[in-house]
Amino acid sequence: MQRALSVHRNDGARSNFPDWYQAVVKEADMAEVSPVRGSMIIKPWGYGVWEQIQKELDRRIKETGHDNCYFPLFIPLSFIAKEAAHVEGFAKEMAVVTHHRLKNIGGKLQPDPESKLEEPLVVRPTSETIIGDAFARWIKSHRDLPLLINQWANVVRWEMRTRLFLRTAEFLWQEGHTAHADKKGAMEETLRMLEVYREFAETYLAMPVIAGEKSENERFPGAENTYSIEAMMQDGKALQAGTSHYLGEHFAKAQNIRYQNEAGELSYCHTTSWGVSTRLIGGVIMTHGDDDGLRLPPAIAPRQIVIVPMLRGKPEDGVVLGYCKALEAELSKKESLGGRIRVLVDTKDIKSADKRWNWVRRGAPLILEVGPRDVAGGQVSFMRRDQLRDGDKVRSQAMERAKFVNEAPQLLTDIQLRLFQEAKTRLDSNIHAGAKNFGELSDYFGAASADEDEGGEFKGWVRASWANPQGAELETVEKQLKALKLSIRNAPLAQSATHGSCIFTGKPAVQEILIARSY
Amino acid sequence: MQRALSVHRNDGARSNFPDWYQAVVKEADMAEVSPVRGSMIIKPWGYGVWEQIQKELDRRIKETGHDNCYFPLFIPLSFIAKEAAHVEGFAKEMAVVTHHRLKNIGGKLQPDPESKLEEPLVVRPTSETIIGDAFARWIKSHRDLPLLINQWANVVRWEMRTRLFLRTAEFLWQEGHTAHADKKGAMEETLRMLEVYREFAETYLAMPVIAGEKSENERFPGAENTYSIEAMMQDGKALQAGTSHYLGEHFAKAQNIRYQNEAGELSYCHTTSWGVSTRLIGGVIMTHGDDDGLRLPPAIAPRQIVIVPMLRGKPEDGVVLGYCKALEAELSKKESLGGRIRVLVDTKDIKSADKRWNWVRRGAPLILEVGPRDVAGGQVSFMRRDQLRDGDKVRSQAMERAKFVNEAPQLLTDIQLRLFQEAKTRLDSNIHAGAKNFGELSDYFGAASADEDEGGEFKGWVRASWANPQGAELETVEKQLKALKLSIRNAPLAQSATHGSCIFTGKPAVQEILIARSY
Repeated sequence: MQRALSVHRNDGARSNFPDWYQAVVKEADMAEVSPVRGSMIIKPWGYGVWEQIQKELDRRIKETGHDNCYFPLFIPLSFIAKEAAHVEGFAKEMAVVTHHRLKNIGGKLQPDPESKLEEPLVVRPTSETIIGDAFARWIKSHRDLPLLINQWANVVRWEMRTRLFLRTAEFLWQEGHTAHADKKGAMEETLRMLEVYREFAETYLAMPVIAGEKSENERFPGAENTYSIEAMMQDGKALQAGTSHYLGEHFAKAQNIRYQNEAGELSYCHTTSWGVSTRLIGGVIMTHGDDDGLRLPPAIAPRQIVIVPMLRGKPEDGVVLGYCKALEAELSKKESLGGRIRVLVDTKDIKSADKRWNWVRRGAPLILEVGPRDVAGGQVSFMRRDQLRDGDKVRSQAMERAKFVNEAPQLLTDIQLRLFQEAKTRLDSNIHAGAKNFGELSDYFGAASADEDEGGEFKGWVRASWANPQGAELETVEKQLKALKLSIRNAPLAQSATHGSCIFTGKPAVQEILIARSY
Repeated sequence: MQRALSVHRNDGARSNFPDWYQAVVKEADMAEVSPVRGSMIIKPWGYGVWEQIQKELDRRIKETGHDNCYFPLFIPLSFIAKEAAHVEGFAKEMAVVTHHRLKNIGGKLQPDPESKLEEPLVVRPTSETIIGDAFARWIKSHRDLPLLINQWANVVRWEMRTRLFLRTAEFLWQEGHTAHADKKGAMEETLRMLEVYREFAETYLAMPVIAGEKSENERFPGAENTYSIEAMMQDGKALQAGTSHYLGEHFAKAQNIRYQNEAGELSYCHTTSWGVSTRLIGGVIMTHGDDDGLRLPPAIAPRQIVIVPMLRGKPEDGVVLGYCKALEAELSKKESLGGRIRVLVDTKDIKSADKRWNWVRRGAPLILEVGPRDVAGGQVSFMRRDQLRDGDKVRSQAMERAKFVNEAPQLLTDIQLRLFQEAKTRLDSNIHAGAKNFGELSDYFGAASADEDEGGEFKGWVRASWANPQGAELETVEKQLKALKLSIRNAPLAQSATHGSCIFTGKPAVQEILIARSY
């Protein structure tokens, strides 16, 4: 079967999903490995997707009352030390700035020993401590609450094995940090932002997710409750696509974030934090890509309609180009999915067929090819990227021009919905219930491949009953799961009240959890 | 004279402009010093201004054909070394990452010696080298040109003396980097982006500037030509508000950025770079601020109209609040200055008078106070921040509500224009010609204060004839100017062809230059 990519999602018996993923990122021109260990270069098409994500998510973050700020990239070591003081053998992978000058010494450029910093600076892995420090200064009275802050920023975590968008040393994200007078306000905020993420992922990324609470061992360090949205990739693995934490008074006590209540007494604030990152782009690729490359949901496609003029270096080229430009102008005036349609006429000086396949691989939702025959017939020929093929053949449709202009908004809405429904069907039909004990779970998933990147057979997730064991009992469960390269993803929200017996402990279950292999 | 700020721009004989500037940044709640040496925290009102700047400038950058990308924060030391190899005693202030792990050793958290990097990483001071490296990989044929890339990012330059927005170790900016087939294309790009900056500064920031070319000694290292826009602050000093560089083949040769031309031969590209930063916000403050705080041009004000409901903890509060909310909804539907009007009802639980003064200090263009009397009379009472006072008294106007809603778009446009004209008059009337030689220039400016931050008397700029001396002659000029804390700002574009004699050399002048004290 001829496809635009040479590596397919599933070549026969042994899956090569990771190779396919790499091929899509490359062929769709989304990003590339940089000469800097663990860091990526996000190319225009990939960054364009991030801009769409930023724009839409930022709107929702502001609509829910948050203000954007910007805090320093560097965190003084003492801030981290405060957190680490009581942890024996604490060691954390972080980029550490130790000098402030380069000097040519003996013909070799190097950190100038005389410029050594008295206190090393850490490149922010997250901004909890530096923002908490500001909150302690900014919050005085109950009138200052709730304090609702968000930041769009780059962060750095020293990763040993990197994969573009999914795990890199530096990545882009937003981090929300809020302070409230009491638990009630903070818990409402935590769940409100989880819901913003769920709705955003499903509506804009066309990526169905399960929102739920993380188990005790998977919580953010210091959090009272951690919630996540989990999405199912096309290899059946789970991707944690966003998290929201209720931090209780833990951080407020560590950083002295207090307010004077109406009675004049000092109380600790209850804080939250929540974030999503460029990892979402990896999720979109692994949710919607196919063997021809990426398929982008129209809501986040930097260009929703691409017009490829079929030019042949002849005088009539001018007429074709004029027709395309006029079409672009008409389409750009139409609205779809909450904004003006984003159209491009690709006038690059390369072969039309190459252009077509470039846009197929990049996943532009609607690709038009316009030649002299279309101009003469007052029509357009177009491909829907979500329905590219009829068997092996590429499906191209002709439509009267005015009709296409009128129907384009609806076509884009249809594609958005269809991509969502396809992924939703995959998710819903691959969450398996019925495992009564750990043996059955183990049999179902089978032995994991030694190399986690190799993926293995498509297994989906298991939904299992759970007695919420704690302490040593939970550690045993974790070990059992880890041996199978499995983990508890979350306990979905809004469950029914009745459950069977815990598949690990046999005790009466209190809820159900999702178990899966994950990214 | 009672003003909202306790520090004024000019208190009697000795100017305290720098203190006034600091007071405005603080009182307008724009930014604050962080616990990280040299780094600032940009607060919501300040960051909101940056978001407006980003949005509008990004639109112009895209309209001129550029794509946004994201490149790594870290630059390998070898990239910098290549640049520095031939410079004796090269020393540069940069943040250097040398370790990738923190470890608790002997009870003290510190960089783990075992995590020392083989090659140190520099936190980007600018991205020329890392982007050039990508260009060398991306560009193969003349069909790949021009390559037009922009990046919004944080950068770090180790500064010893910092001032919020004007000079900080970390700041936010955009950096454009482009590659072209020949000098003609690259020079057109360089001047096109200079013009984008000029038009943006004048139209959006209401900050008049002079666009021109930098003298040889003020060029970006490695540039063939450097252009700048220069703005006059209220202490008469110049602020370089944006730069655009034609880099010739210099960087292309150092980084092997070549393309195959139509004849199949390899040629070096001609490259450009250009940037503006959060420094623009400092420029806005020093252009428009007054003794009551900041005055924001409506085009960049995060909130253009702020409605302060006069609440008194009584039952009729609900009616007042309802009136304000309805007014907000009506005003939010109107368009002004290219977008929907940005309105806020300030419902914070503090005294109305405090709210009023908060918004005066923050420079909201239109501030409304709505009390029961306004509601009863179907009117609004408002202040124009650009015409706040009549002598010492605050000027508040009453207007029929529907009339105000209809006139609000025009009021905002008027304020924008008026702020520009006020600054334009200041600029135009404070560029002094007539100095025939260096002695007269020296007499005009007088001895500079020992502490450059103290400012001194308002002097404005001098426009002088210039023979464009090079080499040793130029060095002498530089020394003479430096002794007076003066510098050549630029040679304005589009000059007449005839000039007198150079005020430094007495030789026939080839152009005129602007000389000033500067930030």
